[in-house]
Amino acid sequence: MEELAKEALARDQADPLARTRELFVLDADTVYLDGNSLGALPRAVEGHLADVVSREWGRLRIRSWTESGWWEMPQRVGELVAPLVGAAPGQVVVGDSTSVNVFKAVVGAVRIAREGDARRDELLVDEATFPTDGYITGSAARLTGCTVRPVAADAVPDAVGPRTAAVLLNHVDYRTGVLNDLPALTAAVHAAGALAVWDLCHSAGALPVGLDAHGVDFALGCTYKFLNGGPGSPAYLYVRAAHQERFETPLPGWNSHADPFAMAPAYEPAAGAARGRVGTPDILSMAALEAALGVWDGVRIEDVRAKSLALTDFFLRCVAAYRKEDGAVRVRSLTPAEPARRGSQVALLCDPAERAEQVMRELIARGVVGDFRRPGVLRFGFTPLYTAFQDVERAARVLGDVIGGPR
Amino acid sequence: MEELAKEALARDQADPLARTRELFVLDADTVYLDGNSLGALPRAVEGHLADVVSREWGRLRIRSWTESGWWEMPQRVGELVAPLVGAAPGQVVVGDSTSVNVFKAVVGAVRIAREGDARRDELLVDEATFPTDGYITGSAARLTGCTVRPVAADAVPDAVGPRTAAVLLNHVDYRTGVLNDLPALTAAVHAAGALAVWDLCHSAGALPVGLDAHGVDFALGCTYKFLNGGPGSPAYLYVRAAHQERFETPLPGWNSHADPFAMAPAYEPAAGAARGRVGTPDILSMAALEAALGVWDGVRIEDVRAKSLALTDFFLRCVAAYRKEDGAVRVRSLTPAEPARRGSQVALLCDPAERAEQVMRELIARGVVGDFRRPGVLRFGFTPLYTAFQDVERAARVLGDVIGGPR
Repeated sequence: MEELAKEALARDQADPLARTRELFVLDADTVYLDGNSLGALPRAVEGHLADVVSREWGRLRIRSWTESGWWEMPQRVGELVAPLVGAAPGQVVVGDSTSVNVFKAVVGAVRIAREGDARRDELLVDEATFPTDGYITGSAARLTGCTVRPVAADAVPDAVGPRTAAVLLNHVDYRTGVLNDLPALTAAVHAAGALAVWDLCHSAGALPVGLDAHGVDFALGCTYKFLNGGPGSPAYLYVRAAHQERFETPLPGWNSHADPFAMAPAYEPAAGAARGRVGTPDILSMAALEAALGVWDGVRIEDVRAKSLALTDFFLRCVAAYRKEDGAVRVRSLTPAEPARRGSQVALLCDPAERAEQVMRELIARGVVGDFRRPGVLRFGFTPLYTAFQDVERAARVLGDVIGGPR
Repeated sequence: MEELAKEALARDQADPLARTRELFVLDADTVYLDGNSLGALPRAVEGHLADVVSREWGRLRIRSWTESGWWEMPQRVGELVAPLVGAAPGQVVVGDSTSVNVFKAVVGAVRIAREGDARRDELLVDEATFPTDGYITGSAARLTGCTVRPVAADAVPDAVGPRTAAVLLNHVDYRTGVLNDLPALTAAVHAAGALAVWDLCHSAGALPVGLDAHGVDFALGCTYKFLNGGPGSPAYLYVRAAHQERFETPLPGWNSHADPFAMAPAYEPAAGAARGRVGTPDILSMAALEAALGVWDGVRIEDVRAKSLALTDFFLRCVAAYRKEDGAVRVRSLTPAEPARRGSQVALLCDPAERAEQVMRELIARGVVGDFRRPGVLRFGFTPLYTAFQDVERAARVLGDVIGGPR
């Protein structure tokens, strides 16, 4: 096993992304493999947020809405997210939670689809979706008179049809780490005359998305995973430029008005990405996100993807090398070995499944932080900007020790 | 005029709330009368937020969801807001923007009203409402098959009827500072079998609200005005305990699920206030709010109301004393002199109206910060926890100088 440790060291020394690790607050005791749930703290956040609180809020107070650029922040921070998801300027706005943005996107998509054909009354939802997407789509369906049909992502091309208004898909499955084929599925949805809504929570910041290139209609995602914006940092909404004029938001808050300070009784929607805004933006959380996004300066998402695949490949090799045939707990990967089907995480299913929670507790106690998802899944996320190959080797070694004991 | 300055000093010396001023970051150069838009920074926020960022996020990372109590924060902070609006525990939850909470409350109220009588298909909205409430109610109406009728708050008892599902009212008018009669209007709405939804943005933290005592059905409000939570700090939602079991939220995000970490495909709503949650809460903004709410320790809202009325009374007297009959700009108060009809602000209408924006710019340049609302309104907010009588006298004196020049 000495070879794997040596290989890890050599790969870290040759890693073109090694420099970005210094931009994060990390500690030598911990291998943090839960950045797919909450990204590590970028160093720039602390000073920036302290300044926003003490100077912008504390001293300038109300003047900061103009003088510190607070009012424009949802669009400004949106433009920092845009290149990471392959969006040209003017299409991404930051604000609200992922769930709220699912609601805007799905209702908006249904309305556009029905402009083309009023009989479209069905929504398809990825049956393995992160649950909030399904719950919110159910509500959107109830409020717009649609029905919801859960289907496997791979089955969408067969399931989508003339009654389909919109299809909501997850780019990377939160549990298994499966990467869905965004270009092909979007094309299949369009071939049936429906609109494609993509949830990018587990892909943005880990791999190229290509929203513009692949003709995605609506997309959204959180910013606290691979984008490292902090706990509950605001989500983003992408509305394709071609749809913006027809986008009728179900949450027309005053921040989305064409002239908000006219305080007019009649609603008139703003043009462009601002139409996706709702109420007063949460400036402190958004300021943390803005500072956090600075780590992407000069980083190519293609390099991130290359390292992500190398990390997950190496982890799977190390797990295979370090596990014992007769260990107390056996693990097998739910994440595809095929690179084109793999996100930036590895999900290991434990046998027996009921031991998984305890295994994760023990890993955390030994400084390897992943997370546990029922039933029986250990999740390990790999953030190329701060995860080293030596971290990966250590994590697999500790896992081998934890699951290798007597049955 | 020397007498008014002397009176101000004497009243500050006798003020039982004078001690809370020390809990805020203020500067001697500025009279800040815009706390009805963005409250001043409470001193406790800076240290607390720095700790949340550097230790809870930076060091504990994902563990903070349990170990730092992040997951329960929306309910925990809700319990800090509850006594300020007259709510017993278990009915207030913090999260999302005011606009998003208007949507939850109005759709929730319509559904409950229709359980009683399916023919109820009309929503009444305060015709002077802050615009977002009207826009969002319009969207809620469209999605639930209702119509919206704007009516003056005073006219609600005559307008509400057997077709009314819900009535949305503002407790204090954002423009004029008029305090609406919450007990009487709520009773009138109930007499017609409809539900009352109150927007408390401009009253919570400035005067007693009495949600439980007056039988309010739903309420919501922001936390960045008189509650000093910081720019865009999360709003709150009150759902009366008696309605919680029947509350069907239009935004059933995973945080409102009875067992969120089961990640179940079927939605099952949580009991209690948690049902009003949606997605992952914005922890940094909410942490600032939590620290900010510490200023209320030991403060009686009745004392706040007494001082608020004394401040606005004194301001109106000082304005009358300092204005010049032949000044370039005349002002008259849109805010009622009658205490029972007055919130914690004074709105002065300028004549000529088109001079108002310039007057406010000049006031700000001279260190008196209020704000301007089209057409022609100067708004001055009075936050009893940090506004002194000497501030009030100075503001009126500077205003007299600014508007007193030749025409």
